[in-house]
Amino acid sequence: MGKASNTTSSEMRYDWLADRWVIMAPNRTRRPDDFRRQPPSVVDPSRCPFCAGRERETPPEIAAYPDPHSLERWSVRVVPNKFPAVQTSTDPWPVRESSTPVWIPRGIDLYQRRELTGGHEVIIESPRHLTSLSQLDRRAVATVFQAFRDRLHYWLEEQGIAYAVVFKNSGLDAGASLAHVHSQLIATDTVPADVLRIDQRMRLFMEAEAECVLCRMVIAEIEQGSRLVECTPRFVAFCPFASRLPGSITVLPLDHSSGFELADDEMIEELAGLMYRLVRQLELCYPDAAYNFVIHTAHVGTRGSPAFHWRIEMFPRLTKVAGFEWGSECYINPILPETAAERLREAGQIISHQNISPRNTAARE
Amino acid sequence: MGKASNTTSSEMRYDWLADRWVIMAPNRTRRPDDFRRQPPSVVDPSRCPFCAGRERETPPEIAAYPDPHSLERWSVRVVPNKFPAVQTSTDPWPVRESSTPVWIPRGIDLYQRRELTGGHEVIIESPRHLTSLSQLDRRAVATVFQAFRDRLHYWLEEQGIAYAVVFKNSGLDAGASLAHVHSQLIATDTVPADVLRIDQRMRLFMEAEAECVLCRMVIAEIEQGSRLVECTPRFVAFCPFASRLPGSITVLPLDHSSGFELADDEMIEELAGLMYRLVRQLELCYPDAAYNFVIHTAHVGTRGSPAFHWRIEMFPRLTKVAGFEWGSECYINPILPETAAERLREAGQIISHQNISPRNTAARE
Repeated sequence: MGKASNTTSSEMRYDWLADRWVIMAPNRTRRPDDFRRQPPSVVDPSRCPFCAGRERETPPEIAAYPDPHSLERWSVRVVPNKFPAVQTSTDPWPVRESSTPVWIPRGIDLYQRRELTGGHEVIIESPRHLTSLSQLDRRAVATVFQAFRDRLHYWLEEQGIAYAVVFKNSGLDAGASLAHVHSQLIATDTVPADVLRIDQRMRLFMEAEAECVLCRMVIAEIEQGSRLVECTPRFVAFCPFASRLPGSITVLPLDHSSGFELADDEMIEELAGLMYRLVRQLELCYPDAAYNFVIHTAHVGTRGSPAFHWRIEMFPRLTKVAGFEWGSECYINPILPETAAERLREAGQIISHQNISPRNTAARE
Repeated sequence: MGKASNTTSSEMRYDWLADRWVIMAPNRTRRPDDFRRQPPSVVDPSRCPFCAGRERETPPEIAAYPDPHSLERWSVRVVPNKFPAVQTSTDPWPVRESSTPVWIPRGIDLYQRRELTGGHEVIIESPRHLTSLSQLDRRAVATVFQAFRDRLHYWLEEQGIAYAVVFKNSGLDAGASLAHVHSQLIATDTVPADVLRIDQRMRLFMEAEAECVLCRMVIAEIEQGSRLVECTPRFVAFCPFASRLPGSITVLPLDHSSGFELADDEMIEELAGLMYRLVRQLELCYPDAAYNFVIHTAHVGTRGSPAFHWRIEMFPRLTKVAGFEWGSECYINPILPETAAERLREAGQIISHQNISPRNTAARE
């Protein structure tokens, strides 16, 4: 039987936060492949509803961030999602604490349903038809992150809202339906069950260790170094020890903070620079790969908590979730996080030393 | 605010078994789509390692099922996966009860890892280069399900094995790497955490209601009828009330049974016929869609349990899992199960009345 340290042998790793074992099977990257992946053809951008000049094709604007150095009226624009997953209520808000239903000892109802209210917004990240954050200039990326902060702040102050999340789907395999660079925000009146489970784990760690689990992880990742991608004065980016998807990156603020939306302009700018570099590194390591990132900030129940530390999770979409994973929720990750981190660090060196251009240099202002 | 019964308004539905709310957002099927999905081009089958005549390209055969009506030596063939996610141990087996680690009150280790042993097999479902179960004849499909039964039986009797699952990945988006029609079996020395969670829910229902949750569901689905796809003398197929993926189908034996591998030949034949029809219906409703199915049979800890009822879950891969879902584990399903069931029933009628040929009629013997 192979040793766990053998790079072609499988091992299991425990994701303490998610309370989940993941199978690391680097051996499986050697599999044959019958299907040639073809990058999806992209529809003619002349009808893109997110481009400047076609503002009337989106629902009325919620916010617009100007760019004083540009001829366009706006650099980042926030609009309601035209096809919302969550409706905005006009009724008075009922306050709900958790998504866990009250369990009735007799007569369990297998067919419970209820309405869901909240908000679903789109953050359009450029007036031009760009398709990646890496095509924006650094100033524009900072404006994008300011918009994330402002919209999260707005929703988390809204009466009846329990939870809000910002996420980016970039590319077809990441769930995007439009190519124009954008992110989304969903706010809901209840906290999703899995988010509550992570909260419980964070509280459990705090109770047992009198320390925030992610504060501990910041120190451990910097000390161990093998999974580190980059460290800036206020942030650390690393490939998490037991990620279920290959190539995943976690970004954490070094100092404990529960709310991303509480970050000041200086922090936002530093974070935007880091995220910009990480996107470029991902694009160099995995050309044409779709990717997601998710900003996990405290919901109304964990705001200001010493146990909750905000984080960003970022993951290229390199593999398909197959029957085994869907059936067992036990994921098989074919790239060791240490290998993924090494590749990303190398990509970072190539970018900084050789000054390789991002996908579309013409788009840089 | 829209009513929950409004077909374009979102509602939340509770999956009691998985203890998870799902957002049903039929409105979202109207979204624009910038990316034209191109079916992946399939590599030249002349090098396919699963075709008859190239048996030496797979690891040594574990089992072969002959077809007396065919010139080929075998109709179904079982081989070890050449790129296993799980290694087979040659050491004496340590017996492990659960994947939940023992929690140590002081000094939580955020970097736990361990070896994983078990088995990973491939069930090759035809000697010919067919790509769908619907291209086989009914007798061959029954042999495939016999092979599933036999291999599950073998692994669940094996010392040190705690859990075994059979699953099919059909098509690139479902995680398949080879086009030749096949399924897989994974057996492990521990039970995945999510499988244990479902067990707990089944036990909870039994304790509260003195009845098996899926026995109750069988009756409820037949009574309600709106999500029913087909009912045979021994099985029912329906679109589950709160499925996280659109177009999902659950297949249950009508009579309580914990083990799929305990089914007799007659049951297997009836099930194979039903699964064959369901695959054809899926292919008619969602042409070119990849799909998975998973056979959930009792693991060593729930064998013979009055609370555990075996089931098959089948799901076409119509949508991509996006950032929101990965971040919150809260899924957005754009097709109501009632709508999906209606389409599948209509497809069933078209197939039976008009006798439409499956993808490759030449392949039918």
